Parts: sequence; structure tokens; C-alpha cells
Amino acid sequence: MLDNIRIVLVQTFHPGNIGQAARAMKTMGLTRLTLVNPRAFPDDEATRLAAGADDVVASARVVDSLEAAVSDCVQVIGASARLRSLPLPHYDEPDAMAGEVIEHASQGPVALVFGRERFGLTNDEIRHCTHQVSIPANPDYGVLNLSQAVQVLAYDVYRAWRRQQGRTAPQPGRGPLPDQAQLQHFHAHLERVMGASGFLNQPHARTSEHLHALFARAQPSRKELSLLRGLLSALESHLPESR
Amino acid sequence: MLDNIRIVLVQTFHPGNIGQAARAMKTMGLTRLTLVNPRAFPDDEATRLAAGADDVVASARVVDSLEAAVSDCVQVIGASARLRSLPLPHYDEPDAMAGEVIEHASQGPVALVFGRERFGLTNDEIRHCTHQVSIPANPDYGVLNLSQAVQVLAYDVYRAWRRQQGRTAPQPGRGPLPDQAQLQHFHAHLERVMGASGFLNQPHARTSEHLHALFARAQPSRKELSLLRGLLSALESHLPESR
Repeated sequence: MLDNIRIVLVQTFHPGNIGQAARAMKTMGLTRLTLVNPRAFPDDEATRLAAGADDVVASARVVDSLEAAVSDCVQVIGASARLRSLPLPHYDEPDAMAGEVIEHASQGPVALVFGRERFGLTNDEIRHCTHQVSIPANPDYGVLNLSQAVQVLAYDVYRAWRRQQGRTAPQPGRGPLPDQAQLQHFHAHLERVMGASGFLNQPHARTSEHLHALFARAQPSRKELSLLRGLLSALESHLPESR
Repeated sequence: MLDNIRIVLVQTFHPGNIGQAARAMKTMGLTRLTLVNPRAFPDDEATRLAAGADDVVASARVVDSLEAAVSDCVQVIGASARLRSLPLPHYDEPDAMAGEVIEHASQGPVALVFGRERFGLTNDEIRHCTHQVSIPANPDYGVLNLSQAVQVLAYDVYRAWRRQQGRTAPQPGRGPLPDQAQLQHFHAHLERVMGASGFLNQPHARTSEHLHALFARAQPSRKELSLLRGLLSALESHLPESR
């Protein structure tokens, strides 16, 4: 399905931006690049800055109009730094866009279209789009570099795809968790050690509550609880008998 | 509050990446850049590629250790391309991280730390972090360019900030958080007590790492840290002198 998502760059001025955009999209599982009238392409700069994504650059499709680039697409999103006066449907938030891109991509090709570094997309090119999206940014300095804009929107699309696949990053395992009985034993042991050390001379219910909450947040695994019990035992051996 | 969010780049090789990172962060409202032992800085390439974010480059703080860069921070997120074996709390999804960064940033400085282009962060540097985050990416080609990684995480942080601005009810607090220097003192104290108790007879780096991670997950408030220090002191009074 990610194969149905096409990154389209219109009249890119710097070939280096093509290379960086190729790298950005490939890190997010996208490999279909289309270039509309690139100023200088092919170019060593594009290949160099693509790093390990030079395959994406090499397989880029080059066409001479945006219309040709997107004619078979079921959705065309124009990435625009500023809202146009055209009443084109506009995504407030790129993650809303990303969700719909994934849905449409199950049906046919979807294009994310990026304009020129300085001038963005023309009004005529926006008319070839079905939706607009802008990346919410610093009102005082809100224009992202072209390949950065590709990275950000590709990132949101990839995330939407992972969610739709039901994929999440694998949890780093800390091993099995203790049950409540084991936790109670630990807290009882901790209380004995605190008492024997003289720390709990004044009965402070709040102290125990705080420590209880602290260890609850820590969510120790069985192994870690074992470690803590070992430490408590080592400390206990130096303390007077609990009263 | 965005002023409390610090981008920290460790031993960046290409000054151009510093410039592009400055641009990326500024588009997302972040202006505090710290450089730990940059290979070549100041450098024309950094200024050139910063475009309109050259002010961020010019005001970058340069230090010679990660410890110095983050000692006053209440949270330190290490951005890592791959999961380490160290059991440091790990954010599965950068947007979960972003939400917590914004919460912590209301209390004190928060650092997002990025490593070297080729080698990332060392295990020792990861130990100066409270959390890890990795950017979910293409399993076949998943390493983002340094400034692209900065762009993506800054984007998520800015989005979390915008969402939070829409909220009215303040979060129930546990009180102010300790900074990294205070946490280091606590861990040093804990180590002394463990050593003096005989628990750390066999030097077990893993034990320290586990406890470090456990307390990182617990996120003790200053008050709780104080309580733990008090307990450690009470225990210490019964133990033989540390060797």
C-alpha cells in the first residue's frame, strides 16, 4: 500500500534537495518519486545527498507537467506553506491528512505534491489537487526546507500506515512483572529496614505512601524486585534487630 | 515554555548539519541549541545552511561534555536510532514523548539529545539521559539524516505544545522535579550505600544500570528524592565506612 503513495516534486531548483527528499521518503517506506520539470536532473548532487536512497533517485519518474504526474491518482494533496484563497479542502493537521491518505491508498495512487523551494505551487497547480495541507509551524519562521517538509509529511503518513496495520514498536522487555503478593512482601521488607535504620522514628504514613507510589511508578520487573530485596537484605545485616 | 526545550547535538561532524538542524528547530519554535564538542564550529557552512535561522546558530551554546549540557535539566531524552540493551525508559512513539516533554518543560529545562551522524550516542552518553526515543522508520532503511531527525522530533514537540495551549485545567502536580545534578548526587549516594552494605562486592555494572533505569521510570519529585536521601543517610549511619 505504501507503494501507492507518490511523492511529487515540482520544478525543484537544487538537485541536492531531490537527493535529501529521496532519503527522507525512503526512511518512511516511500519509494515512488516523480519529478515535474526539475531544473537540473539527473545530477551528481542528487545521488550524493540521497545516501542509501539513490535507488529512489535512479527510479524517479520525470514528467513535464503536474497533470501528467497525477492523472491516475485518486487523491492529490498539495503541500502549501500558506493557505490559498481557493476553497480547496484543507487539512488543519497533517495527521488527519495522513489517515485519509492511507485510506485512499488502498484504492489507488495518492500523490503528495511539493512545490518550488522559493515559490511553492502556482494557483494553477493547486487546481490539480484535491486537497491542501500546510505544516503548522512557527508563525515568525514557518517555511520548512523542501526535503524537511517531505520528511515531516512522509513521517505522518508512515505513522498512519503503522496504526492502520496495527503495528507498534516492539516493547523492550524487562521480563515478567511481580504479582501483588510479591510487591507487598517487598514493601513490608522496606518498612522493616526503614524502621530498623531509625528513619521511621516518627510514624509517617505519608512517607510510606510516597515510597509506595514511587515504586508503583517505577513498575519494577520481578528481576528488579529481586535486586531490591537483595539490597535490603544486605543493608539489614548491618542494622539492629527490628523493634 | 518552548524556551525551556533545548536541542543538544553531540559531536556533530558536518557543520552543514548544524545549520540545517537550526533551521529545522526554528520552524518549530525552538531556539535553544547546545553543541557538545562539535568537530568544526563556528563554520560558514553552519551559517549558510541555517538560512533564516542563523540567529539560532549564532546563539548556540558550546560545551565540552554532555553532562555540562544537561546538568540543570529535569528531563533528558536521548534520540537513538536503535534500542540499547540498557533498560532506560523508552518511548515507543515520539508523540508520547512530545506530550511529556511539554509537561516537563513547564517546570524546567528539557533536553532532546542527538548523537553523531555515523555513531549516534555512546552508552555512557545514554546514561546521562532519563529516557530514550527512536523514530519508527522503514526497517530496511531506517536511519534519518541528523537534521531530519531534529525536524521530526521538533515537529512532534511543537504539535504537543499547540495541543496543550488548547487546554485549560493544569495537570495535577507532584511538585517540582529535580535536575540532573541532583539526580546524579542521589545515585552516587545510593552507590556508596550499596558498596558499604556489601551488596556491590562483585562489581555489577548491570545492577547500577537497572537501578538507574528504575528510578528514571519512577520520576521522583524533589520531595521524594529528599526522602530517599534521608533514608540513605539513616542507613549509612549503621554501615561501615565506604572503602
